[in-house]
Amino acid sequence: MVEYGAALDEVFTALGDPTRRAIVARLRRGDGTVTEVAAPFHMSLNAVSKHLKVLERAGLVKRRRIGREHHLSLDPAPLARVNRWLIDYQDFWESSLDRMERMLTQPKTPR
Amino acid sequence: MVEYGAALDEVFTALGDPTRRAIVARLRRGDGTVTEVAAPFHMSLNAVSKHLKVLERAGLVKRRRIGREHHLSLDPAPLARVNRWLIDYQDFWESSLDRMERMLTQPKTPR
Repeated sequence: MVEYGAALDEVFTALGDPTRRAIVARLRRGDGTVTEVAAPFHMSLNAVSKHLKVLERAGLVKRRRIGREHHLSLDPAPLARVNRWLIDYQDFWESSLDRMERMLTQPKTPR
Repeated sequence: MVEYGAALDEVFTALGDPTRRAIVARLRRGDGTVTEVAAPFHMSLNAVSKHLKVLERAGLVKRRRIGREHHLSLDPAPLARVNRWLIDYQDFWESSLDRMERMLTQPKTPR
């Protein structure tokens, strides 16, 4: 079982919030300025900035300053790390779902 | 983009802690009593119990009472849910890693 320590803590914690997952989903469609990214959220720019800081600490969001604007982009590397952690469990959930399916489809009385 | 709401919040938050991921890894190897699962951790049974409650609320750990003992097992369904969320980003990180590899392997001067 491979473990990725603190980095993985921060990535999972960052993803445990619907606004932060919505920001990640927004940046998947393309880069944007802070103002553009914040626009659809019914919250203050300050509140969005706090969420962005959590995402940046987790390495999910990169910020570049171009002139007076802050440009945000999604760095998918931490998501690939979550995926590698999850792979160790794939056999487990697949066999568990198979077992459940067999239980539901097998005849109730033996032939 | 499929969203899974509060349930996914709790699963990600539960996984954002190394002790809780270690409990998940332990239960992947087989069911266990609370005492057995708590044994390798250098913390009080009370502290382990708090982590177990977070995992149970996220649906990752199931508890059955058999006589005086509490038996714990891993329910992989929430991990399958995280995987479904992650699938939407797979193209993104794969193309991003491809781009990085091309940048590293392409000759510096054009032919």
